Amino acid sequence: MQFTALQIATLIKGNISGHPDAKVTHVAKIEEATEGSLSFIANPKYEEYLYSTKASIIIINDSLEVTKEVFPTLIRVKDAYSSFAFLLEKYNEIISRRGKNGIEQLAYVSKTASIGKNVYIGAFSYIGDNVLIGDNVKILPGCYIGDNVVINEDSKLYSAVKIYEGCSVGSRVIIHSGTVIGGDGFGFAPQEDGHYKKVPQIGNVIIEDDVEIGSNTTIDRATMGSTIIRKGVKMDNLIQIAHNVEIGENTIIAAQTGIAGSTKVGKNCVIGGQVGIVGHIHIADGTRINAQSGLTKSVEASNITLTGSPAFDYKSSLKSQAIFRNLPELQQRIQQLEETVQELTTLLVHQNLELKK
Amino acid sequence: MQFTALQIATLIKGNISGHPDAKVTHVAKIEEATEGSLSFIANPKYEEYLYSTKASIIIINDSLEVTKEVFPTLIRVKDAYSSFAFLLEKYNEIISRRGKNGIEQLAYVSKTASIGKNVYIGAFSYIGDNVLIGDNVKILPGCYIGDNVVINEDSKLYSAVKIYEGCSVGSRVIIHSGTVIGGDGFGFAPQEDGHYKKVPQIGNVIIEDDVEIGSNTTIDRATMGSTIIRKGVKMDNLIQIAHNVEIGENTIIAAQTGIAGSTKVGKNCVIGGQVGIVGHIHIADGTRINAQSGLTKSVEASNITLTGSPAFDYKSSLKSQAIFRNLPELQQRIQQLEETVQELTTLLVHQNLELKK
Amino acid sequence: MQFTALQIATLIKGNISGHPDAKVTHVAKIEEATEGSLSFIANPKYEEYLYSTKASIIIINDSLEVTKEVFPTLIRVKDAYSSFAFLLEKYNEIISRRGKNGIEQLAYVSKTASIGKNVYIGAFSYIGDNVLIGDNVKILPGCYIGDNVVINEDSKLYSAVKIYEGCSVGSRVIIHSGTVIGGDGFGFAPQEDGHYKKVPQIGNVIIEDDVEIGSNTTIDRATMGSTIIRKGVKMDNLIQIAHNVEIGENTIIAAQTGIAGSTKVGKNCVIGGQVGIVGHIHIADGTRINAQSGLTKSVEASNITLTGSPAFDYKSSLKSQAIFRNLPELQQRIQQLEETVQELTTLLVHQNLELKK
Repeated sequence: MQFTALQIATLIKGNISGHPDAKVTHVAKIEEATEGSLSFIANPKYEEYLYSTKASIIIINDSLEVTKEVFPTLIRVKDAYSSFAFLLEKYNEIISRRGKNGIEQLAYVSKTASIGKNVYIGAFSYIGDNVLIGDNVKILPGCYIGDNVVINEDSKLYSAVKIYEGCSVGSRVIIHSGTVIGGDGFGFAPQEDGHYKKVPQIGNVIIEDDVEIGSNTTIDRATMGSTIIRKGVKMDNLIQIAHNVEIGENTIIAAQTGIAGSTKVGKNCVIGGQVGIVGHIHIADGTRINAQSGLTKSVEASNITLTGSPAFDYKSSLKSQAIFRNLPELQQRIQQLEETVQELTTLLVHQNLELKK
Repeated sequence: MQFTALQIATLIKGNISGHPDAKVTHVAKIEEATEGSLSFIANPKYEEYLYSTKASIIIINDSLEVTKEVFPTLIRVKDAYSSFAFLLEKYNEIISRRGKNGIEQLAYVSKTASIGKNVYIGAFSYIGDNVLIGDNVKILPGCYIGDNVVINEDSKLYSAVKIYEGCSVGSRVIIHSGTVIGGDGFGFAPQEDGHYKKVPQIGNVIIEDDVEIGSNTTIDRATMGSTIIRKGVKMDNLIQIAHNVEIGENTIIAAQTGIAGSTKVGKNCVIGGQVGIVGHIHIADGTRINAQSGLTKSVEASNITLTGSPAFDYKSSLKSQAIFRNLPELQQRIQQLEETVQELTTLLVHQNLELKK
Repeated sequence: MQFTALQIATLIKGNISGHPDAKVTHVAKIEEATEGSLSFIANPKYEEYLYSTKASIIIINDSLEVTKEVFPTLIRVKDAYSSFAFLLEKYNEIISRRGKNGIEQLAYVSKTASIGKNVYIGAFSYIGDNVLIGDNVKILPGCYIGDNVVINEDSKLYSAVKIYEGCSVGSRVIIHSGTVIGGDGFGFAPQEDGHYKKVPQIGNVIIEDDVEIGSNTTIDRATMGSTIIRKGVKMDNLIQIAHNVEIGENTIIAAQTGIAGSTKVGKNCVIGGQVGIVGHIHIADGTRINAQSGLTKSVEASNITLTGSPAFDYKSSLKSQAIFRNLPELQQRIQQLEETVQELTTLLVHQNLELKK
């Protein structure tokens, strides 16, 4: 397929500088673009590619100042990344993943399950008793949907997603392969002889609308009540969410982060990769937590940035980290001071001046 | 279903303060309890809820002092958490997860496998050659049990547990979805040209009785001999146990922790989340390791608490962490000292006093 | 089966000290060896076992100096570990995992898939449209191979490996259970109202020859282009590789490490466990990164060792860490200095000497 700059600019409501009839046949990252590529620049640090790329059309932010001659046709928009994402989505709809339909022969669907219209259930997927599957839901091969689970319309489960009994999944939710929803929370009562007694976990997990969850992530069911992932949350791969946690709307969590039991995370937070958050705390709305940080206390004020383990205010933390690198020098300075002060003391004593104590 | 305070107190051998005929219809966390809720308080920091909750019956510790008027009926026991866990277990047995039986039609069971009584094998589960499955074992859909595996009585595997050939699982073991037991240990011999040669991993994994393992955890088989998880160990989600590791009885490990090859962890240890432990070391019985710590050396003395990366004694570590936050101030104080000492030196020199060197 | 020292020495081209007709019936780690064991010592710190073991034959490095009387028969080679690995491999070929063949009845294979010779496809494995499977490929039960995937000859996928559409796997690749290849990269464009818009991920993952990947690892597909794992890379369990990452030849990565989007890792790097590497950086060839480190900047010079979070030069980092433990003492020394300097100042003032400001 071929598209012109004019067609594209019309779709994304952009302004063209260059040839409206420039043509592209494929998309590529700006670093890898060739003749016929449609590409984009969202991050100003990629500006240099603007002057050297072979791409035919580039989508850029209105705010990007062009300081040298540019050969490709440019399309200016407010937010190049979002516009490009929009185009990819359209492209995706046309070209690939057209979506399969129907129930494949080797799937298992309980007689008491209720299946909506235009649903795909792949081979080796297991749909338990009393499950409700909404319209247009796609369940790829090898998934396990336990008894009494609800999956609302337009959601997509990639292969081998496992959902334990009694959990619910909203509309337009995407869950990637190998993710486990609703496994038992980690609750054990220590006994006098040192062994542990399991505390039954009789709650569930609720995943609201428009959530996306990566691969091999685990979200445990609540001991009682619900572990809740609110509308619009985006979670990456290999994340651990413990029992009774609640993640606020539009919060985004990078890979390998773990959140311990009963912690409540606010809305619009941005949590980096490999972060650890202890149990039973509250994280205010808009908190930003840098990668590998460890949170041990509640965050009361909104919209602050934290780093370190244990985590504290980002700017102070940066200073402490810088000094940490110079600790050997600091130690040397203290030693030098001690020697000089010793000499001064000795001199003063020679002058028959007496030091207290 | 409805239960009275008297019925509950009889079951858990507790003492009632309030109305023996108070009735509950459901269980709830103390923060979320409503009329008709049975709840409990185990942690004294939740005491405040005692005076404000709408719960009808609350189980509390004998040791909890009630300082204001309380409306719900109280049942006092030695250990409220364990008593509540016991009730949930009874409730669980009656109400839910009644357990399926039999071999579902779409399961694959080798002709040479031996299956006990009252066993459930879900659809899409694969039972290899010479496998031994004990009585009352439940294998949910989509599990893979390799050749020559043994699973003893009353164990439960949730969906999509994978056990490689030759491993053994004790009695009353629970393994959650997506966990992999017996994958190859990570052993490669570096070659002169920079590539690595795989060292075949011909050992296995032994999981003893009463172990529980969370979701998407990985436990590698030994190079030779066995990786061993001793009786009563409780492991959370996304944990990595490398080849030839041994975890002692009743040790508890939180999510996302990793233990490298050949390390031996003692009994009754408590290991936090996201901890890393290097290979080839010993951890003494009763060691407590805080979340995100990194252990690089053996722990010889029993029952100590460690924190940090690299980890050291908890109290010292807390002090160092506190000073770390104040490093900018410390640096300032050193600079101030240097300036003052410089002035003092200059003054003394003016007095015709000579400093050595 | 029984082997003599002479047979073994011939296979691995070693020199015998002791009885060429000494016999072994099994292999064991040197710490656990009994009569009839074949064992090896590669690490000099295990030398003590040489004098106490009951093993019948031990393979050791040419370089190991024997300082006391030794009872077992020794076979000396250049690299004991590699020789032992070679023997295990031979043993493995003969004894175990003889490999199944054919397509099991409960597998699903698309009519448009092309399957090579001597292939095994286990029950409950799903082979999508237009998939190409090379000769001698083994796909254990419960795998998912999406449309248009290519798997080249002699590769082995353990149970429940999931490969999304359009990815390619080289020859002699081993992938362990539960690993997900080709899930969507974590790309979302923030919108003004706080919600995120998904950026379609239309690239793929390319895994080159001779790669081994552990259990429950996740490798995301590229946004555009390819996420690439180069020839000979060895990856452990529970690792996260984000979209558009490239890992250079013969690099080895331990468990639970995460590498963020678009980062390029060089050849022959050695990356420890639980390491985090931010996105969009380059790591030079031969870089060694210690466990739990956090890399935030590109590494330009080759063959250096890094540690800490944020990571810096290993030796400096060790020094800073040592001083970190002594921060309470350092703080005390500063306080002592401040007091002494204060006394000196007071004394000088008494002498009518004036300090500037």
